[in-house]
Amino acid sequence: MSLKAFFEPKNVAIIGASSDKGSVGFTIMENFVRLKFKGKFFPINPHRKEILGEKCHKSVLEIKHEIDLAIICTPSKTVPMVLQECAQKKVKAVVIISAGFAEIGEKELTQSVQEIISANPGMRVIGPNCLGVMYQKNNLDTLFLPISRLERPKDGVVSFISQSGALGSAILDWASLRDYGINKFISYGNAMDVDEADLLEFLGHDSETKVILIYIEGVKHGRKFFEIAKRVCRKKPTILLKGGMTEGGAKATQSHTGSLAGSIEVYKALFKQTGIIHADSLKNMFDYAKAFTTEPEIRGNKIQIITNGGGYGVLTTDAVIRTGLQLAEMEEKTSQTLKAKMPSHVVIHNPIDLTGDADNERFRIAIEECLKDKNIDAIILIILFQTPTLDRKIDKVIKECLQNRKKPVMILSIGGKFAMEHKQHLEQEGFSTFSSPQSATNSLKALYDFYSRKEK
Amino acid sequence: MSLKAFFEPKNVAIIGASSDKGSVGFTIMENFVRLKFKGKFFPINPHRKEILGEKCHKSVLEIKHEIDLAIICTPSKTVPMVLQECAQKKVKAVVIISAGFAEIGEKELTQSVQEIISANPGMRVIGPNCLGVMYQKNNLDTLFLPISRLERPKDGVVSFISQSGALGSAILDWASLRDYGINKFISYGNAMDVDEADLLEFLGHDSETKVILIYIEGVKHGRKFFEIAKRVCRKKPTILLKGGMTEGGAKATQSHTGSLAGSIEVYKALFKQTGIIHADSLKNMFDYAKAFTTEPEIRGNKIQIITNGGGYGVLTTDAVIRTGLQLAEMEEKTSQTLKAKMPSHVVIHNPIDLTGDADNERFRIAIEECLKDKNIDAIILIILFQTPTLDRKIDKVIKECLQNRKKPVMILSIGGKFAMEHKQHLEQEGFSTFSSPQSATNSLKALYDFYSRKEK
Repeated sequence: MSLKAFFEPKNVAIIGASSDKGSVGFTIMENFVRLKFKGKFFPINPHRKEILGEKCHKSVLEIKHEIDLAIICTPSKTVPMVLQECAQKKVKAVVIISAGFAEIGEKELTQSVQEIISANPGMRVIGPNCLGVMYQKNNLDTLFLPISRLERPKDGVVSFISQSGALGSAILDWASLRDYGINKFISYGNAMDVDEADLLEFLGHDSETKVILIYIEGVKHGRKFFEIAKRVCRKKPTILLKGGMTEGGAKATQSHTGSLAGSIEVYKALFKQTGIIHADSLKNMFDYAKAFTTEPEIRGNKIQIITNGGGYGVLTTDAVIRTGLQLAEMEEKTSQTLKAKMPSHVVIHNPIDLTGDADNERFRIAIEECLKDKNIDAIILIILFQTPTLDRKIDKVIKECLQNRKKPVMILSIGGKFAMEHKQHLEQEGFSTFSSPQSATNSLKALYDFYSRKEK
Repeated sequence: MSLKAFFEPKNVAIIGASSDKGSVGFTIMENFVRLKFKGKFFPINPHRKEILGEKCHKSVLEIKHEIDLAIICTPSKTVPMVLQECAQKKVKAVVIISAGFAEIGEKELTQSVQEIISANPGMRVIGPNCLGVMYQKNNLDTLFLPISRLERPKDGVVSFISQSGALGSAILDWASLRDYGINKFISYGNAMDVDEADLLEFLGHDSETKVILIYIEGVKHGRKFFEIAKRVCRKKPTILLKGGMTEGGAKATQSHTGSLAGSIEVYKALFKQTGIIHADSLKNMFDYAKAFTTEPEIRGNKIQIITNGGGYGVLTTDAVIRTGLQLAEMEEKTSQTLKAKMPSHVVIHNPIDLTGDADNERFRIAIEECLKDKNIDAIILIILFQTPTLDRKIDKVIKECLQNRKKPVMILSIGGKFAMEHKQHLEQEGFSTFSSPQSATNSLKALYDFYSRKEK
C-alpha cells in the first residue's frame, strides 16, 4: 500500500479543527488556510459551524467527497471513535497528531487504536504522538508549531524522516535559516502502523527525493529496516543520525521515545552492512546532504588542496588525513604546466599554495589543471577573500571554471562580512561551501563512502 | 626585556610609509591615520615630503623624539640598513613586516639581520615576514590588510598569537563577525628574535589578557617553550591549535613556514605535561575562549542536562559521554523537590526533560534546583524556543536565574530566525551559547581540564 495519499491528497479532513487560538487544532487549520493548501480541506468539529471561514462538519462521515487524508488532533480518548469513522469512510491515510498513548503508558487506548489499524489494512496510519507531514509542492503542512516561531524551509530535493517531533521541527527551522531545501518531512511518533522502514522504502522510490535524512533513537523492526535499507542505500544517499549511541544516551532514549536504543555495536554493523551514511551531528547531516545535492560523483579518494592561505592549507591537510582520505599526487604534466605558468614562489605540491599575493588568474590556472588531472578525484579549494590581490570577480572565475566539473569541488573560506558575502554568493550559485576543514573533508568522505559502493 | 613597547609605544616610526594606494606602506599609514593612533607617528620615506598629511622624515635618525616602536616595510634588501639605524637610534621595539628572508631561502640578508639583532640585545624584533601587532586600547594596528576587506574585532580579554599571518588575520575577521573581543594580536612570522615562547610569557604576565590563543605550525626552541608554557598554563587558560598534526600536514608546514612540525607524539606529550589546552579546530578554539571568559570555575566533571526537547537531550547525553565527562546524579532532595513542583509527565532524571509543553516557570524551577545541588558541577541548558508554551520573557528568566551562578552553564539552542534572536540576545548578555551538543561539551571539558590542574 503506497504512502502517496499522505503527501498528495486531494481532499483532507481536519478532525479536531478548532477556533481557539494557540491550540493544535487551530494552528493546523491556520496552516491550511494561510499556506493555501492545493486541494479541498474540511474542518471537523461538532461544536462549530465554521472555522477561519471554512464550513465545519460534525463527523468525517458527513462529508460527501472521498477523503484521502484525515488529520486527527482530538483528545486521546476520542481517537478510537474518530479513527473508526475514518475506516468506515475508507480514508486512505490518517495522521494521528494526538498524544497520550503508549508514550505515557496508556495501554487501553493504545490497544483500541491497534485493533482498528489491524482490522483495516487499506488505511495507513502515521502517529500517534507526532507532528505529521510537510510537503510544500501542494502546501501541505500538519505541523502544529506557529510559522512566526518556526519557519519552514524552501522546497528542495532532500527529504527528512524524524522520530522526534521537537528535534525534527527545530531542524526544519534551522534548515530554513540556512536556505536549505526540504522536499518531504515526516515526524512519525509512536509508529503504530507506518514506521521508519516504510517511510525509507517510500522515499527510496520517490523520484523527487534525491537524498534521505533520518533521525531515529531506535528501530521498530530490525530485520525489516535492515532489508529495506540495504536496497535503498545502494541507490540513494541515506544519511542517518542516531540518538543514544552511548550507554548514557541509550538510557535517555527510553524516557524520551520509549525506544530500546539497542546495542551500539549492532547499529555500527547495520550502518556498515547497509551502506547507511552515519552522521554524528546535525551539522554533518546537512553538510553531507549539501554535498550530495551539488556535487558530481567522486571516483576515488585522492584529494588535491588549492589555497592562497598556507596555514589553512596545513590545517586542511591534517583534516584530509584524519578523515581517512588521501592526498593526491598530481601528474607530472600538471606539475610542469603549473610551474611554467606560475611565479617561482608558488608551491606546486599538495597543498598547492598560491600564496598571499595570488590573483584571480592563478586560481583559474590551478583549478583548470587539477580538474584535468587523472590522479585527482576531488578538490578542496580554500580561498581567503581578504587579500588585496584577489579581484572581486573571483566568484565569476570560480563559477566559469567549475560549471561543468566532473569531480566534486569543496569550497572552504573563513572570515568576516566581506568574505562571507562571497561565500554565500557561491553557495547560492549551487556550490558546496564550508567554514571548517573538517566539514569539507567529512563531506567528501561521505561522498566517497556512498559512490564506492553504489549500484552501477 | 619586556615586550611592552610593541603594544604601548608613545612614538612610532613607519619606515617605508608610502603614498601608493594598495601598497603595504600605504595601508599601514592609513591604519594609523584613520584609526587615530593614540600617540605620535612619523612616516619615514626619503622620496616624499608628506604622506596622508603627515610630514615625512628621510631616516629614523632625523627624528628628534625618542622612538619606542619602528615598523619596517621597505624592500628586503634595505632592511639591514634601516634596522641598523634603528639600533643606532636606540629604538626599543621593531616590527619587520617585509618578506624575502629565510622563508624563500635568502641566506645573506637573513645573516645580516641576525647579526644586528645579536649585537643589540636592548632592541627587540618581531618578524620578518609577518603582519605585526594589533592592540586596540591605543588604536595600534600594523596589519596591511585593508579594513574594507578584513574587519577588526572589538576589544576584549582574549589575546591571540599566530605564526601564520594569513590564517591569523582571517581569524580576526571571523572573530569580528561573531562579535568576539580580542585584546592583543601578534603575527610573528620568522621569529628571528621574539618567538612564540617570549610572547606567551609576556601575555602570561599581562593583566588585560585573561585567555591566550596560539596558532603554531612548529615551536622554535622546544625546551624554552616547554618551561614557559608550564608556568603560564597553570595560571591562565592557554588554548593552542597546531597545524601539521598528521604526517601529511607536517610535510605541508615545511613549504609554508619552513617549520619542522616535529613528532606528533612529542606535541601530545607537551600539551599533557604543560596543561596547554589543545583545540583541534578554529571553532573549538573560540568556543573554549568564550567559555573561559563567561563562566565561573568548574569544580568537577558531573554534568546535568535540562531540556524541553527530548531528542536534543539524547544527542547531548551522547556528547557528554563521548567527551569523557560524566552525567551527574542529582541529590535525592533535588529530585523530590522537582517531582513535587512539576507535572507528572516531566522526566526528573538526567536529562531532565521538561517536555514540549514546558513553560518559563518549569525552566526556572529546574535551573534553580540544579544550581543548588552539590552533585552537579555544571549544567547544559537546552532550549527549543519554538514551542508555543515558552513565553518571550524566557530570556529574562534565564538571566535572573544565572546572574550569580557559581557553576558553568552552557546554553544550547537550534533553530531559525526566532530562536537565533533569543540565542544571540543571551550571548550578548554574557552567556556561553552553542548550536551543537559537541561544542558545548567540548567547551566544558576544556574548563574541566584547566581548573582541575590550576594552581590554587
